[in-house]
Amino acid sequence: MSLEPASLSEAASLIRSRQLSPVQLVEACLERIASSSLNAFISVQPEAAMAAARQAQEAVAKGNYKGPLHGIPIAGKDNIDVLGVPTTAGSRIMNDRLPGEDAFVVAKLRAAGAIIIGKTNLHEFACGTTGVNPHFGPVRNPWDTQRITGGSSSGSAAAVASGEALAALGTDTGGSIRIPAAFCGVVGLKPTYGRVSNGGTVPLSSSLDHVGPLCRNVEDAATVLQAIAGLDPSDGSSVEMPVPDYQAALASGVAGLRIGVPREFFFEGLAGDVDAALREAVRVFEKLGAQLSEVSLPQVDQVSQGVLVMLLSEALAYHETWLAERPQDYGEDVRLRLEVARKNSAVDYINARRLKVEVTSRWRQLFQEIDLLLTPTTTTAPPSISEAQSPRPPSFIKLTNPFNFSGQPAISLPCGFTSEGLPIGMQLVGRAWEETTILRAALAYEQATGWHKRRPPRSS
Amino acid sequence: MSLEPASLSEAASLIRSRQLSPVQLVEACLERIASSSLNAFISVQPEAAMAAARQAQEAVAKGNYKGPLHGIPIAGKDNIDVLGVPTTAGSRIMNDRLPGEDAFVVAKLRAAGAIIIGKTNLHEFACGTTGVNPHFGPVRNPWDTQRITGGSSSGSAAAVASGEALAALGTDTGGSIRIPAAFCGVVGLKPTYGRVSNGGTVPLSSSLDHVGPLCRNVEDAATVLQAIAGLDPSDGSSVEMPVPDYQAALASGVAGLRIGVPREFFFEGLAGDVDAALREAVRVFEKLGAQLSEVSLPQVDQVSQGVLVMLLSEALAYHETWLAERPQDYGEDVRLRLEVARKNSAVDYINARRLKVEVTSRWRQLFQEIDLLLTPTTTTAPPSISEAQSPRPPSFIKLTNPFNFSGQPAISLPCGFTSEGLPIGMQLVGRAWEETTILRAALAYEQATGWHKRRPPRSS
Repeated sequence: MSLEPASLSEAASLIRSRQLSPVQLVEACLERIASSSLNAFISVQPEAAMAAARQAQEAVAKGNYKGPLHGIPIAGKDNIDVLGVPTTAGSRIMNDRLPGEDAFVVAKLRAAGAIIIGKTNLHEFACGTTGVNPHFGPVRNPWDTQRITGGSSSGSAAAVASGEALAALGTDTGGSIRIPAAFCGVVGLKPTYGRVSNGGTVPLSSSLDHVGPLCRNVEDAATVLQAIAGLDPSDGSSVEMPVPDYQAALASGVAGLRIGVPREFFFEGLAGDVDAALREAVRVFEKLGAQLSEVSLPQVDQVSQGVLVMLLSEALAYHETWLAERPQDYGEDVRLRLEVARKNSAVDYINARRLKVEVTSRWRQLFQEIDLLLTPTTTTAPPSISEAQSPRPPSFIKLTNPFNFSGQPAISLPCGFTSEGLPIGMQLVGRAWEETTILRAALAYEQATGWHKRRPPRSS
Repeated sequence: MSLEPASLSEAASLIRSRQLSPVQLVEACLERIASSSLNAFISVQPEAAMAAARQAQEAVAKGNYKGPLHGIPIAGKDNIDVLGVPTTAGSRIMNDRLPGEDAFVVAKLRAAGAIIIGKTNLHEFACGTTGVNPHFGPVRNPWDTQRITGGSSSGSAAAVASGEALAALGTDTGGSIRIPAAFCGVVGLKPTYGRVSNGGTVPLSSSLDHVGPLCRNVEDAATVLQAIAGLDPSDGSSVEMPVPDYQAALASGVAGLRIGVPREFFFEGLAGDVDAALREAVRVFEKLGAQLSEVSLPQVDQVSQGVLVMLLSEALAYHETWLAERPQDYGEDVRLRLEVARKNSAVDYINARRLKVEVTSRWRQLFQEIDLLLTPTTTTAPPSISEAQSPRPPSFIKLTNPFNFSGQPAISLPCGFTSEGLPIGMQLVGRAWEETTILRAALAYEQATGWHKRRPPRSS
């Protein structure tokens, strides 16, 4: 019996066979959180989690096993509502908001037997990618606590990497699941836009927001996605599409899959270690029997500008009143980012939306020739916290935000380490609604390389 | 054998039984157009129409009758592409544009056997509701040629009312099918947003644009809608929804239908004759066995502002380059309207879209309690052309534009005449995708009252 199972799947198997009790597992996570220096959580709910763990334990004892999330401690992100727990969104603005119900995805997780142990730290209002929060402090990278985790799902990535939770929820508007997953050496999946409800989540930009899982490995991501996917009639962005069996899809491997590697844009200006890791990943897929080819994504160089106009305009529309009444309660980087959006005209916004429609359609055509696209997740490994606190903090969304624009599903998974021992992330992008293809390719790669098994130095 | 059949349906019946030849029918329409003073057409295609009429005639002779549009002369609107005929959109800007293919709806009409005889005059770029065109002259109302027809589908309504065509296409972004239908005493149907393709139509505001028919009676509108409804994969606004049999739906009558009559907004500030006609229409429906009740449309008073922000911002995005390079080529009213939209910020536009989503959802709930909403189409009968040419021309979209916002189907049909003999229009609004309910109620009313049978004084 281990109190540090390697993954959600391993823990599930131990719980099912009664070798591990949910009570012990939750206790172990709570202890790791309590002794951690990562600052991954804004709030922890030990009493509620322990009560749920005891219930889960009793249910197992009675033979009422609910499935692979039964008794599994999962971290929420603090822009996703949990009944009775304040949703701060990492801000000083919302810290008195007490949700009257669970977000749709939280309710789905609980229905599948999962236990919410706490709510993770994030870039303020999810509007940035360093994870340096002015009100709750920076989240520290478990691979090097002087470095950032990336954001905005900074605490979720750190918690999963360090074993403070077995999985976490994240939100991704320009890369906020995939970037911290890459920087922390975990798996992060942004599903297709509309696949997972945004109901009960504090919006950043409702046209680009996605909820998804951060996990230790690909199988775990499939398990969490299975639980949270599906129609939410009360969320306008949610789409009624059949939800496939993601576990069943995992076994298919990559032989014969057509994987495109971008000729332009995605491999430009990469750090040497990142470039080398990705080139090696391409060779791994070739050895596994995939068909690799070079492709070009039309208009990809125009996308960042379109994303910024849409994202920040929609964010400003949401924040306008608070920004007028309580400007001092915002961190400076977020406030300036929102203020810049004031210059956007209705025509700017409409043109950005038109570009989105055009790009989505042209890339859909490109993806008739390929099944997946392979890119780095970020151009570099995570910088130091002090570097990220500079007046003009770096942004890491260049390689991820194109797929918020197109709404396509995209995963980040570990594909190597820099000479300094920092994780490197690879991004795989699929056709809309085909998370299955991403997951089976990612699993095959993971099994061939084992990068996901490397764990960070003790974090607490 | 009559060369002035009372309706498309009557003409179809005569053609089918070989009592009327498409050649004679098209000739008669062309003669009426040639001798007309209404200015309903921007271009007429007599050679192409006569060639098509001869083909249609031969097909009938050989027993190849295609159905109720076989050999029927229909007018396009000059913002809808017809292969090889310039699309001016009523402007000086686009008058050298020669379409390389038919608009989706035109191709569908032709496939059903219809003959396009010409393209009708309209408010410049469909961006106004008087139908006074600065480049092609005002369209004149067949009931009083000193009066406007309403717009923007001004020529389409005038042509149908005066027998210059047996049906016409229109476009409706804030009321542009329904208003001229009301002012000219014909039936105008704006289908559900997405039901009929906008492909090959000059956009005004792609979120609010609808293509639909103007006809002499309800049965004719059902026939034309049947031909043009359905998915156009190349048009992003087109939706894949089953297209019902509209003719079959007509027979169902109104007994038991729940018809809501708005308590607020729609009956405020009506001209006396309009108010009286509508009150009488309510009594007719009661006698026919419908269940009438008073209802309130939440937020309806906020809609006009939202529509204007969306409509004019989207129009400005389309016109921006031309407006910068060729401002003098625009009529003053349209140019000023577009210029006003420059002040709209991205946040204004986003808030308008949000209101649209909210209103659509709230009205969908209201329409669980009613099957139809009954309102006037306009608050007054058509004013004089000189009044409409004032520096601040009147707008007539107050009662129609709410349903461009909600995307619900809406019809205008004749429901009486003013003391001056000018037509009055009633609007019936249904649930999204339920044109059938509108059509069956409209037919029952039409049969009970016979208002549609009154014809305008000779127009030529």
